[in-house]
Amino acid sequence: MQPPLRVGIAGLGTVGAAVLDILSRRAAQVAGRAGRPVVVTAVSARDRTRDRGRDLSAYRWFDDPAALAVSDEIDCLVELIGGEEGPARAAVEAALGAGKHVVTANKALLAKHGLALAAAAEAKGRALAFEASSAGGIPIVKTLRESLAGNGIARIYGILNGTCNYILSRMEQEGSSFAECLAAAQQLGYAEADPTFDVEGYDTAHKLAILTSLAFGSAIDSEAIYVEGISSITPLDLRMADELGFRIKLLGVAERVGDAGIEQRVHPTMVHKTSPVAQVMGVTNAVTVDADAVGELTLVGPGAGGSATASAVVSDIADVAAGTFGAPFGRPVAGLERAERAPMQRHKGGYYVRVTVHDRPGVAAGVASRMAEADISLESILQKRPPGADRDKLGRSGEPVPIVLITYEATEAAIRQALGEMAADGLLAEPPQVIRIERD
Amino acid sequence: MQPPLRVGIAGLGTVGAAVLDILSRRAAQVAGRAGRPVVVTAVSARDRTRDRGRDLSAYRWFDDPAALAVSDEIDCLVELIGGEEGPARAAVEAALGAGKHVVTANKALLAKHGLALAAAAEAKGRALAFEASSAGGIPIVKTLRESLAGNGIARIYGILNGTCNYILSRMEQEGSSFAECLAAAQQLGYAEADPTFDVEGYDTAHKLAILTSLAFGSAIDSEAIYVEGISSITPLDLRMADELGFRIKLLGVAERVGDAGIEQRVHPTMVHKTSPVAQVMGVTNAVTVDADAVGELTLVGPGAGGSATASAVVSDIADVAAGTFGAPFGRPVAGLERAERAPMQRHKGGYYVRVTVHDRPGVAAGVASRMAEADISLESILQKRPPGADRDKLGRSGEPVPIVLITYEATEAAIRQALGEMAADGLLAEPPQVIRIERD
Repeated sequence: MQPPLRVGIAGLGTVGAAVLDILSRRAAQVAGRAGRPVVVTAVSARDRTRDRGRDLSAYRWFDDPAALAVSDEIDCLVELIGGEEGPARAAVEAALGAGKHVVTANKALLAKHGLALAAAAEAKGRALAFEASSAGGIPIVKTLRESLAGNGIARIYGILNGTCNYILSRMEQEGSSFAECLAAAQQLGYAEADPTFDVEGYDTAHKLAILTSLAFGSAIDSEAIYVEGISSITPLDLRMADELGFRIKLLGVAERVGDAGIEQRVHPTMVHKTSPVAQVMGVTNAVTVDADAVGELTLVGPGAGGSATASAVVSDIADVAAGTFGAPFGRPVAGLERAERAPMQRHKGGYYVRVTVHDRPGVAAGVASRMAEADISLESILQKRPPGADRDKLGRSGEPVPIVLITYEATEAAIRQALGEMAADGLLAEPPQVIRIERD
Repeated sequence: MQPPLRVGIAGLGTVGAAVLDILSRRAAQVAGRAGRPVVVTAVSARDRTRDRGRDLSAYRWFDDPAALAVSDEIDCLVELIGGEEGPARAAVEAALGAGKHVVTANKALLAKHGLALAAAAEAKGRALAFEASSAGGIPIVKTLRESLAGNGIARIYGILNGTCNYILSRMEQEGSSFAECLAAAQQLGYAEADPTFDVEGYDTAHKLAILTSLAFGSAIDSEAIYVEGISSITPLDLRMADELGFRIKLLGVAERVGDAGIEQRVHPTMVHKTSPVAQVMGVTNAVTVDADAVGELTLVGPGAGGSATASAVVSDIADVAAGTFGAPFGRPVAGLERAERAPMQRHKGGYYVRVTVHDRPGVAAGVASRMAEADISLESILQKRPPGADRDKLGRSGEPVPIVLITYEATEAAIRQALGEMAADGLLAEPPQVIRIERD
């Protein structure tokens, strides 16, 4: 058997601790798989004095992760610090510069500096492995990079943020508000004290940027992603979705749109209740790939959590130890396509549009005719009058009432134009709600 | 760039033709992924004169696949002939003996001779790759072998046969009989003229044997699999399942049961409607893995079809070309555990038991007391009297009526004992139906 792969772990939070556990508990299994033992020789974390409930005396301690990264005692740096700059970036760059392999779970770092880091790894013939960076324990990176090697991919979409899916699932099941369900998620440890990064879609966008590159062989382009979060979703939208046969999910979607380039978007999405991603409730993640040879493939599993993320980290470490790794993005960085960004205004799809109008004569007709003028065909219109309001003899109360429109395929630009006209007409009592419908 | 990997394809049916198509259409992509081109240099099939709608003149033709296998013109044999013996086995053995890599979709060959073939590949340091052998386009082999390298696996179960899932889905949706739905599947090309291999569970068993070995690190043991098909399932069972919150799926299940060893079984199964595999309708396949680090992971996709199967074959070829392959079963054959076979009589789980009794006084009591005597606790009892029969003043017709029992956890032995006693008591008008319930 070959000499062991010597691993240094930078960052000893829940994921780092779980990686230590797995490498100890499954040492023989990992060695069998890799053809050589994997041993942790050194660790680094912010505070050496903190009680982590485990004996770390067998590992050499580094206060500075960049010093760990270039240590003669490691062959492979496992970066679990997080953050797109600072110590994480410094450690990964130092490790690659020193000819070490790198395994990382850091989606922010990859979304911003992934191409430069991949080029550095390639130049040294070393691994830059990041299965844990997207969708946690779901092996979507390996699936895209290796299992779909012979496929052209038309679209990839998924639930990539467990916090948002938990909140939306709970809103749907309980009929309660975003704020209430966010608070519940925070109490359960599913959402951070400052939830912005998750609920406004940025976390999903980082992951999507990485998956897009793997799926389409395109250079990572986080800036090209349209991002919209879930904080505007109301219980009424979820009720309407249910009546119309949909669920609302925060999806990351990347799609090749004809000659226009690649569309990357993160936003709340209406998905048919029968679609695989619609079945996924709670903190679970799911990714669906539309590929020309295999057809539709869906992977469902835990997207976060120390142990599930560590599972992905360990699979990368085993690949490094076995020497069975290739180019980080499945092909040389120089061969990645600089894809055109397909602008959101040209996005085409069905739309759920909820306008709140004053319940007056001619309002529904005004809404419908503005849609028609923008060449938008309507699949259905639902008007729900609030119960209990005083009404005139035609049943109209003068109060704000919601009208929900489901459109056939239309462009984003047409929808925005029609809504602009309605606002100019004074038809809208409140800002409109627009939720894109994702086809199965 | 390195010299090309030269591939010889034995078997030019729908899968072989699709492999040729993909390797030609995605040549640049596969070369980018593998770091070297992949070229098909030679082919073999039974009938050279058959019009395959494509120009094969660029490939050297072999009438004998075993001659192709040892040809100096190939580095890698792709075996798509099928069958556990005969030309497929001869060609694969010849190729490995000659130091060629082998990629195969042949589940029957692997289920029977997989260990010997893997040992031969290991001895020569060559690949034996078989992603396409189980669940078609779903990358479950790579997931088990590589992505779950750090996981202990408690259970793997799945829908591994599209024909059976199509028939059961259609029976459920239409309320029609097994025979009617089988005929429909045959007309659509989803079932063979002789459907025995699919509908009696043998195809699922072959795939399960392979997945069990990968999941548990155990030596393949097809003989240890309990196998039961779907031909006994009636529309009444599907209706009852629906009422009780279940669907019926033909599952392959492998599970480590304490110290008793590994239980491998293929049989119609009651799954809760909310479970991921219950969502999977039609010819689609799905596999769920319960693993200690990652938790529950489910992969859903096409389990058959030329193009989807070829997608898996091409991913294996790309791994071979890139040199990123390891031991066929994820660890050396010598390291595979000889697992105990957990006998079916000791299987523990919930059961759906449908007995057909003569509608006479005391019959339900007799059934219930026989269950109680065997220490089986009942979760529910459903008795459906057929409409329209003549009845006495207590509503009993004397006609055969079904009683459905759902049990809490019980052993197979206890269930069989109770049913034996009921038969001896003369309570049963027809043979009983027993369907095991699989927990989520």
